[in-house]
Amino acid sequence: MSDQIKVGIVGYGNLGRGTIEAIKKCSDMKLVAIFTRRAPESLSINEPNVEVLHISSAEEYKDKIDVMILCGGSATDLPEQGPYFARMFNTIDSYDTHAKIPDYFGMVDEAAKAGGKTSIISVGWDPGLFSVNRLMAEAILPSGETYTFWGKGLSQGHSDAIRRVEGVAGGVQYTVPIEEAVERVKSGENPELTTGEKHRRVCYVVAKEGADRAKIEQDIKTMPNYFADYETEVNFITTEELKENHSKLPHGGFVIRSGKSGEENKQIIEYSLNLDSNPEFTASVLVAYARAAYRLNKEGQAGAKTVFDVAPGYLSPRSAEDLRRDLL
Amino acid sequence: MSDQIKVGIVGYGNLGRGTIEAIKKCSDMKLVAIFTRRAPESLSINEPNVEVLHISSAEEYKDKIDVMILCGGSATDLPEQGPYFARMFNTIDSYDTHAKIPDYFGMVDEAAKAGGKTSIISVGWDPGLFSVNRLMAEAILPSGETYTFWGKGLSQGHSDAIRRVEGVAGGVQYTVPIEEAVERVKSGENPELTTGEKHRRVCYVVAKEGADRAKIEQDIKTMPNYFADYETEVNFITTEELKENHSKLPHGGFVIRSGKSGEENKQIIEYSLNLDSNPEFTASVLVAYARAAYRLNKEGQAGAKTVFDVAPGYLSPRSAEDLRRDLL
Repeated sequence: MSDQIKVGIVGYGNLGRGTIEAIKKCSDMKLVAIFTRRAPESLSINEPNVEVLHISSAEEYKDKIDVMILCGGSATDLPEQGPYFARMFNTIDSYDTHAKIPDYFGMVDEAAKAGGKTSIISVGWDPGLFSVNRLMAEAILPSGETYTFWGKGLSQGHSDAIRRVEGVAGGVQYTVPIEEAVERVKSGENPELTTGEKHRRVCYVVAKEGADRAKIEQDIKTMPNYFADYETEVNFITTEELKENHSKLPHGGFVIRSGKSGEENKQIIEYSLNLDSNPEFTASVLVAYARAAYRLNKEGQAGAKTVFDVAPGYLSPRSAEDLRRDLL
Repeated sequence: MSDQIKVGIVGYGNLGRGTIEAIKKCSDMKLVAIFTRRAPESLSINEPNVEVLHISSAEEYKDKIDVMILCGGSATDLPEQGPYFARMFNTIDSYDTHAKIPDYFGMVDEAAKAGGKTSIISVGWDPGLFSVNRLMAEAILPSGETYTFWGKGLSQGHSDAIRRVEGVAGGVQYTVPIEEAVERVKSGENPELTTGEKHRRVCYVVAKEGADRAKIEQDIKTMPNYFADYETEVNFITTEELKENHSKLPHGGFVIRSGKSGEENKQIIEYSLNLDSNPEFTASVLVAYARAAYRLNKEGQAGAKTVFDVAPGYLSPRSAEDLRRDLL
């Protein structure tokens, strides 16, 4: 189709690979090129009709790509790439360094407006779909409390922290909601709960030969910020078990708004995700919002946006008439 | 506050009463007047500073009301009131006769555009919040199936049907999701299910003195459209039990999208509501969208809209900066 939305991807990690797959599910979109900081020929990408290029050549694709999906990380990639690409392309990213979102939004907004482009930042499920649900639920039930639970899911940051412990050869960490806390929230009790009272941390660790397991367990459990404030469980496993049972990237979680209407009626709104693959799901969200960015730009709505600024209809390839008839 | 959004209500049934309560929770809104087809003095409304007026005088309030919330029913009230009010006011309604939504949208759109007003139709939870979730989940996971379950909740239409059966003095009907069907869907199996395979119907019936209970039960269970295609349970109770245990209007339900990303990864999105009071919750949704209608109109976006056309940010009284900082 000549009227397909032409998409580019920046970054070829888990998220970039998930984005390739997600675009394949959308007949109204076409992946044109993948941009990387590595030597393009070093990437083994088996996608006919997709160019693999060095990131420095992106500018030449200004007229060949309708929307660029930035798949880099929030720590170092996006603070640089976000504003850089926003000046030349409509962009989508999954920026998630929460405390710095206002600054990041400002930088991207300035760049996008200068270029007449539309950039939707902080897209994914949290921030992203969970944010939309926090906002809508609070607007609908002003009297109440909102709770976000994460998991059961593999936390990349906590897994990295385990692997830095002395004597550890490998390991992963799952964040698990505490069932009792979930039940209290769902009952409408509106308890006050810290993150540590809502979640426990379950670790699967491969110890190096001859390492002191008791010390590893102690080092993990007392690690500040990551584990000290949580109920933490450490299980030692073999390298084979790690590979066999813990190489997927499942995740999920839920947002619950527990509020009251009128004098006393309890009303509970819940949004939940149960994901076999965190990066593939996040990529699927990015791609739907890429469609929205392209359309908003066609309407002349330049600048930085977030999921809060995007009406649901922009996410679907179907016409407004079809949506009203079939999904309303 | 002089910059409060001034709201009017048309219709004083369960939904109208819920709307009065919902507006009280919103400090940025002020209820100005309630319009009724009955004699205004016949209504016992204890709301100081709120006028109670005959519906025929609404036109005089064109400049005194920013948005009118239409709380009438879809069968006869809204087809007439929707277009009538849309010409004079920004409006919100909960029109839910699904097959006629395209026609209704057209009529309201024409009227609203003629008057330069903004009308959001079919607002509530289904249609409404459930519709938003059906759309977003399908756009994010194009490969998959969407399932809507209703209940456990009191169905007004089915309760009315019971009360029309010979020998019945009173009764209510609850729609209850079939747990086994729910579990199959949540497991990612993607079964094909009819509405009858997803729900059962539980009736609580008060028989008239001397009535034939076996015949009542038979008449209910074989009633076409309402009960014949469902697993139906009929329980006989006393008038006192009916009043004591079944006078509330709870409801709820869930929308589940079960899809796949990439080659084989299961991804489940679920949105669920557990409501003590269906009319109060629906009213809370109407009020949040009333805020949006007012704002969209201020931006010059006249005509009929649905929940698909409203970006989440319009629902909240908080500024875009605050929302990005606190909820993203």
